[in-house]
Amino acid sequence: MTTIPSSISDIPGGVCAPNGFRAGGIRCGIRANKDKKDLALIVSDTRATAACVYTRNRVQAAPITVTRNHIADGYARAILCNSGNANACNADGIAKATRMAASAASALGIDATDVIVASTGVIGQPLPIEPIERGMVELASALKADASGSDDATAAIMTTDLRPKQRAVAFTIGGVECKLGGICKGSGMIHPNMATMLAFLTTDAAVSSAMLQKALATVVDESFNMISVDGDTSTNDMLTILANGTAGNPPIATDGADFDTFVGAVRSLCIYLAREMARDGEGATKLIECTVSAAPDVGTARAVAKSIITSSLFKTMMFGEDANWGRILCAIGYTDAPTDFTIHTIDVTLRSAAGTLPVYKAGAGVAFSEDAAKTILSEDTIMIDVSLGCGDASATAWGCDLSYEYVKINGDYRT
Amino acid sequence: MTTIPSSISDIPGGVCAPNGFRAGGIRCGIRANKDKKDLALIVSDTRATAACVYTRNRVQAAPITVTRNHIADGYARAILCNSGNANACNADGIAKATRMAASAASALGIDATDVIVASTGVIGQPLPIEPIERGMVELASALKADASGSDDATAAIMTTDLRPKQRAVAFTIGGVECKLGGICKGSGMIHPNMATMLAFLTTDAAVSSAMLQKALATVVDESFNMISVDGDTSTNDMLTILANGTAGNPPIATDGADFDTFVGAVRSLCIYLAREMARDGEGATKLIECTVSAAPDVGTARAVAKSIITSSLFKTMMFGEDANWGRILCAIGYTDAPTDFTIHTIDVTLRSAAGTLPVYKAGAGVAFSEDAAKTILSEDTIMIDVSLGCGDASATAWGCDLSYEYVKINGDYRT
Repeated sequence: MTTIPSSISDIPGGVCAPNGFRAGGIRCGIRANKDKKDLALIVSDTRATAACVYTRNRVQAAPITVTRNHIADGYARAILCNSGNANACNADGIAKATRMAASAASALGIDATDVIVASTGVIGQPLPIEPIERGMVELASALKADASGSDDATAAIMTTDLRPKQRAVAFTIGGVECKLGGICKGSGMIHPNMATMLAFLTTDAAVSSAMLQKALATVVDESFNMISVDGDTSTNDMLTILANGTAGNPPIATDGADFDTFVGAVRSLCIYLAREMARDGEGATKLIECTVSAAPDVGTARAVAKSIITSSLFKTMMFGEDANWGRILCAIGYTDAPTDFTIHTIDVTLRSAAGTLPVYKAGAGVAFSEDAAKTILSEDTIMIDVSLGCGDASATAWGCDLSYEYVKINGDYRT
Repeated sequence: MTTIPSSISDIPGGVCAPNGFRAGGIRCGIRANKDKKDLALIVSDTRATAACVYTRNRVQAAPITVTRNHIADGYARAILCNSGNANACNADGIAKATRMAASAASALGIDATDVIVASTGVIGQPLPIEPIERGMVELASALKADASGSDDATAAIMTTDLRPKQRAVAFTIGGVECKLGGICKGSGMIHPNMATMLAFLTTDAAVSSAMLQKALATVVDESFNMISVDGDTSTNDMLTILANGTAGNPPIATDGADFDTFVGAVRSLCIYLAREMARDGEGATKLIECTVSAAPDVGTARAVAKSIITSSLFKTMMFGEDANWGRILCAIGYTDAPTDFTIHTIDVTLRSAAGTLPVYKAGAGVAFSEDAAKTILSEDTIMIDVSLGCGDASATAWGCDLSYEYVKINGDYRT
């Protein structure tokens, strides 16, 4: 796992931690569950540089198309997101996503093209736009600059998520303290490719649009693109960041030490959020962290780690707390990796807070006590350490187990 | 789905249907369950041409390595298979697989290099060779040339399979009636790539080794490589065929009408067996048959069909009998297909014995009655018809739903 620089410190406040951001969340009435908030808004007091990465699914939800247009100039001021409806595969999707942006712009007195829109929920049902338009004035006046604003926004974007996922960090650029906050939601249809589920980041650092985009592109492959809940890449994945520059740091517009510091903070935050997303995967009872080392290159290390945490047989065995390590070898074996490797130099170790259990070394199984294995696998965070023995690249992927609950949740998701 | 030529007729007898083959199955004691047979043998009375395709998993079980050597000359006489242990990832695997072949050769009075060996079961546990060697004489004397021999062999190769899977067909080459029989087993770790689980075919047609190999290579991509139970490609997949030529047909040694007839029979048998394997997938309550048509090429049609039937979210929705078709669009969208296509011309229809339900047409959902959808999806065989609207290629894939039972079976497979 990527080490988090000691110069980065945790702070409270989520997306409201950076200066000049307010957030809020309300129930406008899209979702059937009357106790569930379903509309979130994050606003920068001043115009911010913006960057975004999106799902690579060729079916892309309407809000992605609209957002792509709106941040083409590299700037934005607000992020509006509804849950309960994905606004994907609908004939009137673009029109509705455009109305969402217009509605927020009108309530906030900003340009509609400065609004990023996002949606999450059922695919293929027309988005009820009236509740959003009706609720917008209430939402705009409910915005708060403290942690409670971030809490409300986090609650409003959750779907099958059981745990809110948010974090904020502070770091220093050019002697100036900057802050970065983020919230995200999972927790099914999670197998990001190029982007992720929904993750919204804010920062008061001054960073150009181009460097902001470069930071996201760098970090997403080490964080959100390294998790999987069920192998399904969503139509609505989006990771976005707003940087309003109010911290007053020397603006970051080129590569260099300041940019590296900024990327380090974004990486730290995104890995945290991605890991929490895996832990809160639909039906998950365990977080699985798989680190592949001694690989010929990073691409191969990533592919092997993801192949393991995506395997249904591996995931059910984690749920059953059964050290059936042959399934790990099997998933390593069928990995579609950029560089080939042999299985004769591979070591596999299972690890948790309860202990360490080597199960496979250089081509053959290692005898172990089933009782010891059971004890180690009964923990709620399990590490799978794989050494390919043929290089010095490494990567970490995060996933979860496959439980009865996953089947239950998804057997009848719409009702 | 590929049409089965009317010149091919079903006959009883499984792998014993063709002339000059005997088969049997006994319990030798590898498996804990005392009621379960675990050792199967299929023997041709005369030396037969042989062909085989194997898993593409880079972790390949020991019996695959041994079999590869044994049929390098294009000939074999016997297939010996144990269940209960995969003999994969063991330091002494090759030695044990070699001893399996030697044991059968000794009991049958044939060359050890004419024995194909296969194993299925838990990966990474040393294969108990003694029960196999001890049981071999009993097994050799239990061989039968009628349907009961095929029944016993089928029972002995089953692991989590609930239903025996076998079939035989008759067809005519050069005015001579030939027969082809096959048995196979699933039913987890099923996502074949190049080969399949275990499927053993016998024929009394005279076919050269080279044309036999060509027939398998052609057919496997339309049958076993088009099914998935859980996305996991096994370390032990093997599809093999023995052709002893006792039917007396003009030997097939080149392309032409006779070879096409033979391939038609192999295709018919393999599609049947593959489909039954999907229907009997671990925990399956439904067979899913997904046909993608109007695709730009066969590779794209196959990739889209497999993407749909492999999606965990699609599979749980089938289990829940919920017409949440957005998940089908999502899986189409993230398909890694050789040729790109747009989603604007796609049609999706759900179909079963209870009726037909168009759900998506040219970029938008079609309104439908939830009651009608429920009725259609409550059947035990569901067809998903997808038209990409951009070509004339098509392909069919077979899968099953994802149920609580799958999780239960695989949460504690070893005990």
